[in-house]
Amino acid sequence: MDIISIIVVLSGLVALLYAGYLVYKIRKQSSGTPKMQEISGAIREGAMAFLRSENKILVVFVIGVSVLLLASSFVSGSNMHWGTALSFIVGAILSILSGNIGMRIATLANAKTAEGSKESINKGLSVAFSSGAVMGITVVGLGVIGVWGMYTLFTSILPAPYTCTSEQTANILFGFAFGASSVALFARVGGGIYTKSADVGADLVGKVEENIPEDDPRNPAVIADLVGDNVGDVAGMGADLYESYVEAIIAPMALAAIAGGAALSTYGPNGILLSLIIAALGIFASIIGMFFVRTGKKSNVYSAMRNGLFASTILVAVLGGIATWYFLDGKLEPYYAMLAGLIAGIIIGLNTEYFASEKQKPVKQIAEASKTGPATVIIQGLVTGMMSTIIPVLSVVGAMVIAYYFAGFYGVAISAVGMLSILAYSLATDCYGPVADNAAGIAEMSGLGQDVRERAETLDAVGNTTAAMGKGFAIGSAAITALALIATFIVSLNLYYSPDEILQILSIGNPYLVSGLFIGAMLPFVFVALTMGAVGRAAYSMVEEVRYQFKEFKLLSDPKAKPDYKRCVSISTKRALREMIIPGILAVITPVLIGVIFSLIGRNDPNPVGIGAGPASIGGLLIGSISSGFLLAIFLANAGGAWDNAKKYIEAGNLGGKGSPAHKAAVIGDTVGDPCKDTSGPSLNILIKLMSVVSLVFLPIIIALS
Amino acid sequence: MDIISIIVVLSGLVALLYAGYLVYKIRKQSSGTPKMQEISGAIREGAMAFLRSENKILVVFVIGVSVLLLASSFVSGSNMHWGTALSFIVGAILSILSGNIGMRIATLANAKTAEGSKESINKGLSVAFSSGAVMGITVVGLGVIGVWGMYTLFTSILPAPYTCTSEQTANILFGFAFGASSVALFARVGGGIYTKSADVGADLVGKVEENIPEDDPRNPAVIADLVGDNVGDVAGMGADLYESYVEAIIAPMALAAIAGGAALSTYGPNGILLSLIIAALGIFASIIGMFFVRTGKKSNVYSAMRNGLFASTILVAVLGGIATWYFLDGKLEPYYAMLAGLIAGIIIGLNTEYFASEKQKPVKQIAEASKTGPATVIIQGLVTGMMSTIIPVLSVVGAMVIAYYFAGFYGVAISAVGMLSILAYSLATDCYGPVADNAAGIAEMSGLGQDVRERAETLDAVGNTTAAMGKGFAIGSAAITALALIATFIVSLNLYYSPDEILQILSIGNPYLVSGLFIGAMLPFVFVALTMGAVGRAAYSMVEEVRYQFKEFKLLSDPKAKPDYKRCVSISTKRALREMIIPGILAVITPVLIGVIFSLIGRNDPNPVGIGAGPASIGGLLIGSISSGFLLAIFLANAGGAWDNAKKYIEAGNLGGKGSPAHKAAVIGDTVGDPCKDTSGPSLNILIKLMSVVSLVFLPIIIALS
Repeated sequence: MDIISIIVVLSGLVALLYAGYLVYKIRKQSSGTPKMQEISGAIREGAMAFLRSENKILVVFVIGVSVLLLASSFVSGSNMHWGTALSFIVGAILSILSGNIGMRIATLANAKTAEGSKESINKGLSVAFSSGAVMGITVVGLGVIGVWGMYTLFTSILPAPYTCTSEQTANILFGFAFGASSVALFARVGGGIYTKSADVGADLVGKVEENIPEDDPRNPAVIADLVGDNVGDVAGMGADLYESYVEAIIAPMALAAIAGGAALSTYGPNGILLSLIIAALGIFASIIGMFFVRTGKKSNVYSAMRNGLFASTILVAVLGGIATWYFLDGKLEPYYAMLAGLIAGIIIGLNTEYFASEKQKPVKQIAEASKTGPATVIIQGLVTGMMSTIIPVLSVVGAMVIAYYFAGFYGVAISAVGMLSILAYSLATDCYGPVADNAAGIAEMSGLGQDVRERAETLDAVGNTTAAMGKGFAIGSAAITALALIATFIVSLNLYYSPDEILQILSIGNPYLVSGLFIGAMLPFVFVALTMGAVGRAAYSMVEEVRYQFKEFKLLSDPKAKPDYKRCVSISTKRALREMIIPGILAVITPVLIGVIFSLIGRNDPNPVGIGAGPASIGGLLIGSISSGFLLAIFLANAGGAWDNAKKYIEAGNLGGKGSPAHKAAVIGDTVGDPCKDTSGPSLNILIKLMSVVSLVFLPIIIALS
Repeated sequence: MDIISIIVVLSGLVALLYAGYLVYKIRKQSSGTPKMQEISGAIREGAMAFLRSENKILVVFVIGVSVLLLASSFVSGSNMHWGTALSFIVGAILSILSGNIGMRIATLANAKTAEGSKESINKGLSVAFSSGAVMGITVVGLGVIGVWGMYTLFTSILPAPYTCTSEQTANILFGFAFGASSVALFARVGGGIYTKSADVGADLVGKVEENIPEDDPRNPAVIADLVGDNVGDVAGMGADLYESYVEAIIAPMALAAIAGGAALSTYGPNGILLSLIIAALGIFASIIGMFFVRTGKKSNVYSAMRNGLFASTILVAVLGGIATWYFLDGKLEPYYAMLAGLIAGIIIGLNTEYFASEKQKPVKQIAEASKTGPATVIIQGLVTGMMSTIIPVLSVVGAMVIAYYFAGFYGVAISAVGMLSILAYSLATDCYGPVADNAAGIAEMSGLGQDVRERAETLDAVGNTTAAMGKGFAIGSAAITALALIATFIVSLNLYYSPDEILQILSIGNPYLVSGLFIGAMLPFVFVALTMGAVGRAAYSMVEEVRYQFKEFKLLSDPKAKPDYKRCVSISTKRALREMIIPGILAVITPVLIGVIFSLIGRNDPNPVGIGAGPASIGGLLIGSISSGFLLAIFLANAGGAWDNAKKYIEAGNLGGKGSPAHKAAVIGDTVGDPCKDTSGPSLNILIKLMSVVSLVFLPIIIALS
């Protein structure tokens, strides 16, 4: 093995071994009282049941798509290879695997975190963060090994008749990304619908109608709600970022490998592998950064996390520079692109934190607005969410311009891998959130002492902030990854059209491109409407079930009565999976459908733009959906986060505190914000990436057909 | 004079004469009791006071910009002419004039409509619709005469040393559009903030806090509220559509006139004047359509209006075909483009009607959602608004593809003039709405009999529907007009760059274009945040004033107490004008600023995309802002309209009727929707057109500087 392969494989192995070590350490911790173990067990059972049901649908989907991919590879004139189908399956399986591992450990660690909080806040933090770290490093470990494995298999390992052209290699890598993307689609959309239908259902009847506290064990939807945190924020977030991660690695590889990309001639064969090297170094940097997560005497959990983040960032920045210099013979241009992406990611995270933090002006303004009722809360939240789009857009634009300036399309793709290089660390802080949230819930439900619950809630509060930052980062990385994929799409056109034709195809003076752009800009709006409507319908079923149980089982009047948690869990599962079908199909089919329809129209168009009308419409579709999807996603995530924290700000005793009219108004804002920030917003990440990947995978066949 | 000029001038004169005749007829009607005259007088006084204050700011703005334009015409290498400055001033003055006339007649006709309703519903309808018709035909009459006048002045009338090149002629026409655009900016944004701050202020204290009915004369903000309807929906809407109208006429003229547009060689010099001919024929068609607005025995006001719309549409479709065939020597391609635009406009209007109608599913679903509280009302409204974007986007895309297929960029521009050809009629139905609304208010305030009030309210209810359709039409026409302007922008680049360079500049593979596209897609979000925030701040001042007056003047306890209406009117005026400054500046300056900044960056870029980085970023900015602005505008307008009508549906006695918990929830939805549909949404129409016009006007100077 060459030195690059050694670094990459080593990073993957170190990641998986370290994850194993952390699991061993977490397992050794006590899970607390039998009551705590029982609750934790119920959550785990519910979460795994959801994953199993989801995976059943996924298996059907994966088999169907694999057959389609395999069939496409036999269409004459298409550049597709049977390896794409294989790679698709592997990509999907690895994503399912990492989601499974992450979910198991998260639902194992929640009770242990609550138990650890009995001892000290540092102990609780250590358990919760370790479980997040397991998820983070599993995702990246499986990611780099998977991409490296597929690439190596088809370029070096397989004997002569099975090897393939560089164009086919690129398509095989896109297949891997498509596999990851498909799992992410179901995990994010299904998980998002699950978590909010359970949450809204539990709150609307429990908190609003019956006036019992959050996480009250008498509420039949309380377990479904806790399961939802894992399903949405662990499995969903993990699959989303796994997708971004592998796509960010794959885009520069494909760009450099296929003909027409200038990167190969400029940077040599190592240019193909640069993104893998950066990813590998990012794993080491992240693991080292994790050691910084310790609270000092003042128990400031948040600054502990921030220290780790900055440590990882600085480390990967240094290592990346050295590696680029070494492997690209002193050519540092791609390194500048990587740095631009890395810094843009940090800025976007900090922007989200500003707009969603209880300590800053935006959230306080929403809280102020609650004095004049729910309508002004909603309006102020919309204003906040929309204003919060400025910095992220300028960050992505800045990173893109800098990256392109130094290294063209290849640079744009490398900037995405720069942003995602310390994903292991970011994801650890993200997944820490739901574990801490569950721990606080378990502490409440099993009646632990006041001081323990307070510690667990401190951990939970920090988790909310890191989760908000994580959402911002996920959106930003989705946008830059999608841009990297578009760059790859553009370069891919070189295989089929002359440079002059490509310019004509990609021009905003081309009506087919503009048509695609308008339709693309519209899709995120439709996608949000579908997912938000789905939450409403699923929550409605849950509300009916909870009301029924309260009444029939006399849960509030009879102290011996026990709610049937399982029925609520089962309702969430079924409804979430049913509701995700239509938006899922929309995301996968649209690019292909648009491409084929406009190809057919273009065939009959005597104008010069008739040539390549299909790819033109797809190009427009992608850039249109990214621009509007990115903006809507930030808007929804930050408005939702700000409403949430405005409510918490009032609950902390400001403006009349809990139960005041201001609080009631703020609760309405929070309820509106819930599907925004946890279902529809995050689902857009998948939409914009998935459509790009689908376009890349099926481009050869669309062109062959048109 | 040639035959084309005769048709155009004749149409303008007929329009103005007919408007004069209608004014004469309206003036003859009785204004009712002294009380009614007093209220109507107060509304007129308030409305004119606002216009005067607004015009003071406009004068400063117009003088400033004229100086800038004049100075730019002296920069060597720029294609600008001193005529642009003159044309800018004329365009602005004509827009101010038509707004002024429309406002005078609307505030004169409100009491006369109420008085007419004493006699019969047909009489009330006739007065209200006639006043709307005055506005409609004044706008189009001044529009065609203004554009024809400036064009003729600089191409035929002025002697040799003052004539100009065809490029300069185009720039002079852009100047005219810029003048119209500037007035529209202030009228729409300022008017939108005015109307909603007064409305929300009056409702929050009157209806919600003090529980007195709408339009109760004891409410000190009630006159400001009625003034607001005129300021926003008459003056604002009129200026908005005046802008769309002249821009739709100008775009194909400029396209055909300047070198590089293929239209001149294909269609001959009459191709330059085709849009003026279509507009002139549309005026005749609209006036004839107006005669169809009579209610039969069943008093169905709405179908009366619809009949007139279809009559005008069919008439202009026929006349347009004949004229195109005659003047373009049998070449009918542009006619198909015109038809595509005309039909798309009708579809968009009907789509809006569907989503905002109390009789259809979307509004009923929102009303249903009100049973589970305000949060679900808000969510369901968001879902509805987002789903309502599908048809308008597909309509515009369809019109564009068809128009381009038959006649290239020229066809796209002609499709815009097709959509706007019957503007006189559409605007008459739009402006009818606020007059009927005012009439109902006056009937309520002056204590007219129950039957009269019911008739007035029937007229008002229809006005709400036509206003909603009008909003949809305004948005659709703004989008297609902006597309026409972009087409013109693209063709204009031929003056400065080679065809190959232009393709490079306009490619979505150009990072500067993509940067502009992202920033452009972001601006509508920021613009909405600014205008929505402005309404909140202005409404807050109004709430404080109304509360103060209720308390100090003992308005509700002392029957002799009189509210000080003028103070509320003055507050709305001052706040609206102050709050419109920042969004206004943003809209005007951004394209120039972006163009200059990216020009400077591009200068230092060694990549091929460095050439024309400024125009590339502007091109991206325009297409990005149109795509996201169009979608946001539809979303906001339809969500707002649907919330409004869901409330009215409940008030009609459904789901518990007035005062029920469902009604309270629906009122919150309506309050959120108010700034969406009446301020932020409509303001986006201006943003997307204005940025295109600014880009066209200043393109020569940006290129000269870069």
